[in-house]
Amino acid sequence: MKEKELIQIIKSTLNSEYIGDDCAYLKDLGIVISQDSLVEDVHFSLDYTTPYQLGWKSAAVNISDICASGAKPKYLTISLSLPNKVNESFVKEFYQGAKSVSNDVEIVGGDITGSDKIYISVCAIGLTNGRKISSRSNAKVGYKVIVSGEHGNSAEGLRLLQKGILTPEKFVRAHLMPVPQIDFSEYLAKNADFDYAMMDTSDGLADALIQIANSSGVAIKIDTSKIPHDTSLNMETVLYGGEDYGLVAAIPSEFACSYPVIGEVIAGAGLIIDGQKFVNIDNKLYNHFEEKNEN
Amino acid sequence: MKEKELIQIIKSTLNSEYIGDDCAYLKDLGIVISQDSLVEDVHFSLDYTTPYQLGWKSAAVNISDICASGAKPKYLTISLSLPNKVNESFVKEFYQGAKSVSNDVEIVGGDITGSDKIYISVCAIGLTNGRKISSRSNAKVGYKVIVSGEHGNSAEGLRLLQKGILTPEKFVRAHLMPVPQIDFSEYLAKNADFDYAMMDTSDGLADALIQIANSSGVAIKIDTSKIPHDTSLNMETVLYGGEDYGLVAAIPSEFACSYPVIGEVIAGAGLIIDGQKFVNIDNKLYNHFEEKNEN
Repeated sequence: MKEKELIQIIKSTLNSEYIGDDCAYLKDLGIVISQDSLVEDVHFSLDYTTPYQLGWKSAAVNISDICASGAKPKYLTISLSLPNKVNESFVKEFYQGAKSVSNDVEIVGGDITGSDKIYISVCAIGLTNGRKISSRSNAKVGYKVIVSGEHGNSAEGLRLLQKGILTPEKFVRAHLMPVPQIDFSEYLAKNADFDYAMMDTSDGLADALIQIANSSGVAIKIDTSKIPHDTSLNMETVLYGGEDYGLVAAIPSEFACSYPVIGEVIAGAGLIIDGQKFVNIDNKLYNHFEEKNEN
Repeated sequence: MKEKELIQIIKSTLNSEYIGDDCAYLKDLGIVISQDSLVEDVHFSLDYTTPYQLGWKSAAVNISDICASGAKPKYLTISLSLPNKVNESFVKEFYQGAKSVSNDVEIVGGDITGSDKIYISVCAIGLTNGRKISSRSNAKVGYKVIVSGEHGNSAEGLRLLQKGILTPEKFVRAHLMPVPQIDFSEYLAKNADFDYAMMDTSDGLADALIQIANSSGVAIKIDTSKIPHDTSLNMETVLYGGEDYGLVAAIPSEFACSYPVIGEVIAGAGLIIDGQKFVNIDNKLYNHFEEKNEN
């Protein structure tokens, strides 16, 4: 089963208003909360990741989820399950990496248990502080789509690392030590007097766009020439690579900001990339590209 | 390395006031937060655990941590890492079990990823609601020690389950579906106008007592004949069995309550069981008993 089908099962079992966005918005407490896991040999490999980098990335990807909501990242708890091969210095360097992502975020708890492989689960709390909180279902026809950061770098970095290649450092670093887009998030959330949709691009830029389109009941039309990316990368890597932890948002067209506009929200369904319409089910979106590759 | 040594490393790396108790008390938000994990073949086996029971226990042990702080359990997020062998009905039954522990607790988020084995990490939030929050370092000389629930039942249940024996149901149920001590916690936290120490007995009653004694810089003296337990169990199982998820607290001797008093806080260090003093390092405490068994 795919992750998204299982989430549908969870949603229907719990019958909860909270499940759906990357963060749950707990209005009574003025916080958002999210939890994400990294599993050895699924999400990372110690062959090319240092304990410091692993700690950094574990914290960064969860801080990124909070940024996607517009809240201010504040607290983390970290649950580590570690095999015997892991020693004292691993734990020390892991936490040094985790706490280095942001001086404004404090690690306040968690636990350690034994396991066969390394499992890391991080829970992140963000403060709403009167900010406007996003939802992926908030995109409206006429909105523009903006994006932060270059896309595709992380996937290229992973490709290089898996071949044992450590340069260009820009790509490798994008994969191992992603930087959560705190400024982009804060700028939008502090200045928004409107509903807006925002997601991080952890599963790829195209995936985030289609999630927003589907949740909002609209179509999103993008112009790939407007997406910031390294010109050495092909557009498939840029659109589908994943793990760049940029942010993509749909906001009113009149809202002034300096971030690149890559598209617009229109009536309909699905994602329209350079005039070509893609189906609105994400695995078909992937399948389409697989078919293209075979031609 | 032992869990407790690793926690010391984390504490010194983070230099945080929060690490130490099972919950972090975030005063600015009026909440406590804790995170705990269950790993397949370390903490449970599908040989004798249904998905419903696993969901129940995952929620219950984290609700128990919140109870140990005195806060009111309110929200959970659950991170599941699942191998391919796990199907739709597993996820559904797991969440049905998790949500059945308490009607007052809501599951608001989490994620699902792939993995080799089942790995569950739950983050729990409790509301302080003006209650007095406990700390394991709050025991004072002259306090009495009270306990909730029978001890040893869960360990006996595990012993039976591992042999394929499913009765007496009381023991098996104590292991598979522990009940967090919400009433005991609420009674104490709502009525306390004093500092008090409280822990759950997840790692065993003796372990909780010595953690409180060590953190508070006192000794704790107990009379095993006062500990509620099934008379078919030996005292080692009652003291060291673990996973009963009872609560043990050190409170002023004049505070009136109907819970069994099993001992008192005195000057000194370590744990005094029926007049016999045990060293104040928990693995030596265990070793002592191992030596005794050999005689």
